[in-house]
Amino acid sequence: MKLSQMLLGTLREIPSEAEIPSHQLMLRAGMMRKMASGVYNFMPLGIRVVKKIENIVREEMDKSGAQELLASAILPSELWKESGRWEVFGPEMFKLKDRNDREFCLGPTHEEVFTDIARNEIKSYKQLPLNLYQIQTKYRDERRPRFGVMRSREFIMKDAYSFDKDEKGLDVSYKKMYEAYNRIFERCGLKCSCVEADSGAMGGAGSAEFMVKSDIGEDEIVFCTQCDYAANIEKAPSKPELGEKEELNALAKFETPNVRTIEELIKFFNTTPKKFAKTLIYKADDKVVAVMVRGDREVNEVKVVNEIGGAISFEMANESLVKKATSAEVGFAGPIGIKVDFLLVDKEIVNMYNFIVGANETGYHYTNVNYGRDFEGIVGDFRKVVEGDTCPKCGKKLTIARGIEVGHIFKLGTKYSESMNAVFLDENGETKPLVMGCYGIGVTRTLAAVIEQNNDENGILWPVSIAPYKVIVIPVVSKNNEQMSIAEDIYNKLSQNGIDVLLDDRNERAGVKFKDADLIGIPIKIIVGKKINEGMVELKFRNENLSEDVEIENIVNKIIKKLKK
Amino acid sequence: MKLSQMLLGTLREIPSEAEIPSHQLMLRAGMMRKMASGVYNFMPLGIRVVKKIENIVREEMDKSGAQELLASAILPSELWKESGRWEVFGPEMFKLKDRNDREFCLGPTHEEVFTDIARNEIKSYKQLPLNLYQIQTKYRDERRPRFGVMRSREFIMKDAYSFDKDEKGLDVSYKKMYEAYNRIFERCGLKCSCVEADSGAMGGAGSAEFMVKSDIGEDEIVFCTQCDYAANIEKAPSKPELGEKEELNALAKFETPNVRTIEELIKFFNTTPKKFAKTLIYKADDKVVAVMVRGDREVNEVKVVNEIGGAISFEMANESLVKKATSAEVGFAGPIGIKVDFLLVDKEIVNMYNFIVGANETGYHYTNVNYGRDFEGIVGDFRKVVEGDTCPKCGKKLTIARGIEVGHIFKLGTKYSESMNAVFLDENGETKPLVMGCYGIGVTRTLAAVIEQNNDENGILWPVSIAPYKVIVIPVVSKNNEQMSIAEDIYNKLSQNGIDVLLDDRNERAGVKFKDADLIGIPIKIIVGKKINEGMVELKFRNENLSEDVEIENIVNKIIKKLKK
Repeated sequence: MKLSQMLLGTLREIPSEAEIPSHQLMLRAGMMRKMASGVYNFMPLGIRVVKKIENIVREEMDKSGAQELLASAILPSELWKESGRWEVFGPEMFKLKDRNDREFCLGPTHEEVFTDIARNEIKSYKQLPLNLYQIQTKYRDERRPRFGVMRSREFIMKDAYSFDKDEKGLDVSYKKMYEAYNRIFERCGLKCSCVEADSGAMGGAGSAEFMVKSDIGEDEIVFCTQCDYAANIEKAPSKPELGEKEELNALAKFETPNVRTIEELIKFFNTTPKKFAKTLIYKADDKVVAVMVRGDREVNEVKVVNEIGGAISFEMANESLVKKATSAEVGFAGPIGIKVDFLLVDKEIVNMYNFIVGANETGYHYTNVNYGRDFEGIVGDFRKVVEGDTCPKCGKKLTIARGIEVGHIFKLGTKYSESMNAVFLDENGETKPLVMGCYGIGVTRTLAAVIEQNNDENGILWPVSIAPYKVIVIPVVSKNNEQMSIAEDIYNKLSQNGIDVLLDDRNERAGVKFKDADLIGIPIKIIVGKKINEGMVELKFRNENLSEDVEIENIVNKIIKKLKK
Repeated sequence: MKLSQMLLGTLREIPSEAEIPSHQLMLRAGMMRKMASGVYNFMPLGIRVVKKIENIVREEMDKSGAQELLASAILPSELWKESGRWEVFGPEMFKLKDRNDREFCLGPTHEEVFTDIARNEIKSYKQLPLNLYQIQTKYRDERRPRFGVMRSREFIMKDAYSFDKDEKGLDVSYKKMYEAYNRIFERCGLKCSCVEADSGAMGGAGSAEFMVKSDIGEDEIVFCTQCDYAANIEKAPSKPELGEKEELNALAKFETPNVRTIEELIKFFNTTPKKFAKTLIYKADDKVVAVMVRGDREVNEVKVVNEIGGAISFEMANESLVKKATSAEVGFAGPIGIKVDFLLVDKEIVNMYNFIVGANETGYHYTNVNYGRDFEGIVGDFRKVVEGDTCPKCGKKLTIARGIEVGHIFKLGTKYSESMNAVFLDENGETKPLVMGCYGIGVTRTLAAVIEQNNDENGILWPVSIAPYKVIVIPVVSKNNEQMSIAEDIYNKLSQNGIDVLLDDRNERAGVKFKDADLIGIPIKIIVGKKINEGMVELKFRNENLSEDVEIENIVNKIIKKLKK
């Protein structure tokens, strides 16, 4: 493409709306423009990269044996009501009605649709295994869209759904996707970690996320400092810190007027947070759940929800509910005498001695509390892992980093096939529910993540595999006919060899041309300048500071060879 | 792909929901499934054809110098309010609100969006001409979705918008699109006619439609029986039939109790419809329009709307409005003394003598009415062309056929750039509105149209260019190891040569395999049967009855050569 004819809207200034490098650079390089909050138009340079990522995804999915299809994006509410998710999604789902008042949504994900397809199309075990995928525009009405396409409301996703006759088959399908995902991200030039993720009430190693480390990530990932263990913090199991064994003292009630927070308690009792157990109260659908963790710990809500068998809504209890459960003002909750549906006790509490808890009475705390003697509950792992905790695999120290999820593979099992009656006849003529997996890649988010990992102060550094154009030919002085003619010749030859190449034939200063080429991140620059008098052009790679002079007659072959590698 | 692993849902029965061959065959071949009324899922075989058509469109658009981008599908209402079309679309537009109660629609077309992009990105004449296109899912809430993807509510469209500095430039852009469209449809194997279409109030040869002749088409196309003239009936100019000149008789009012319709009048006056002029009353936004045509003619509403300078809503007047305009019951409208904003008189009326019209008085008609003496109005071409009318180009007879519109090219001029202030600086530093064109192709509709033109009693006959697979290799007896091994070998070699090939390795009877291969329309069959004992396989083309035997060792090269042609 000749730049003089291309719609290239590069910006020198950083748009004030953009907080992170990928968002800034996608705007500055003219790859996209905002249409509405969290809704973007991909401009010519942007859509080229999207298509290249899509093609890599498509090739690797096909190679893994998956079959592409394309479901509709507007989806009738009936399907979602069948699975029970019409209400679950809440305001995150774009809902609409057609002219006959029938309810639809814009698909935020497609488990229901693919389960519906499967129950209509799959009759027999002979049709299994089957993996169906699509590359499609998805819609989620995010409460706070931000960071450009990193968290947008309209985005492109590859979603796949596998169907197997049993768990063993699912393991194979899941592994194929794991391998395909690794190949996809590697080919896109993205460094990411596959981390264990929460898989809901199912348990097991049934879910993994492909995470890109980044300070702006919404997820916290736990890594071992020694071994290869990595997990989403939602999933990472905690090891209890063992308290020193003590003689059990007699339970005592203490007047603690206006002492409610852990900080106030520490001061009041002149001790450490490790001597307290805090009791947090949640509302899970119509149940009330109390969770106890050590004073300096945080509750892992995902672990809690899994323990109680799942919940559609889960949130901190409001004041009136706390009062009802504890018969006291907020700040005095404790396990003894609390009126809740579930009392969950983090296992660390069991190894604490003579600790302090709220007395469920305004202005009072108990001291010398001990698990087993003074109260009992459901003991389990309910706290968040923290920096320095013990690795569950090798026992060394854990560290925590933030991450962006670019892919997710998930063993669904029979969750949807059972609720939607997607069954098949097995070898013995018995009706069985299909065993499903689902697998997603955020295509547009992957694009942004690649930029997050590949940029410098001058702009983007595209990996060759997904660069919008691989080469840019720059005649230093466009008005110099000799330079322009040599540049055009190189450009034409590269084009004829099927290489995506740009010719910067604009009547602009050399500085502007170089700045734009760097900003839009073209991996290879061929500069046609004064040295043509010596029969040379300059070859420069975006990711290297060095440049080399190459004979004009050799440059095309050199590039072709370079790109074949 | 091996059929044993493929999701292939062929049906022997014709689904009752499908009325036309393409709809029936797309369901029977398992290319798509219905999700909701007018909303479909493309299954693996279907999406392959969609992608092939998309690629042809993309290649030809790129070749014409157009640049691809991808705008969002959810569009903020503000843009549509700016152009004045938010209300125009009415219930055909899917509207929705986000969580903050902001109004959006699902884009039914993108003139506003591309005009918005242009006004933001285009500053100078140096950036012109520019042609931007996208291939995208579009949404129209059709009142009566039918015929599968021929008239669906979610469909894939290629839409392009050109921007030029003047009309001359637009002519060039328009011609490029005309040529690209011809190449696209030809490559897709679709026979279609480019016909003149209505271009609204702009007039001129500013709009053409690419039409596929079909009885189920929604449009009527006028063709000359002699020359190459072709036009949408909305556009085709009529030539008045000249009445025999008569002496003008004196105007007379006749009592005609309960005689209202043309049929009743003919009987009552014992004459022909050519002696009557009917007066129809319409409501155009807030104006009342009366249109007179000869008794046996039909009003061409598009011509009427153009004459009055456009209208957002245009419909037959209701009873009360008719009464108000005519001071009479319905059935007695006429030109003399009628109270309307516009009285349009078809030019044929001017050449009629002593004719009959309603008297604007219940139970009365006038006879011996003559234009000029008894009434006057805006004279023009307001009637529909009929079979046998005169060709405006060569004067021979016209004929009429129904057609399906698969493409449309349209000179918009400055309609949107003026209402949305999309301007540029010309060579003299003057601010001017961009001169625009828009160009659409219904991708999914093209697919259906190809099937309408290419099918027989056994199924689809795909043109090689867009066939989901070009070749199918069929071992007659799957359990025969020798047959299967030869078939697999041929399949592998064709695959390795980049040919889209199927292997029917299913454990099915030969009859089932042949039926399925014909139904899904694979152009080339290689049948591996008994003749392998003589070193031969059978080669059969879907569109020919003949088959030939080919040596096993030659078959792959023969196919490769055949497909290269």
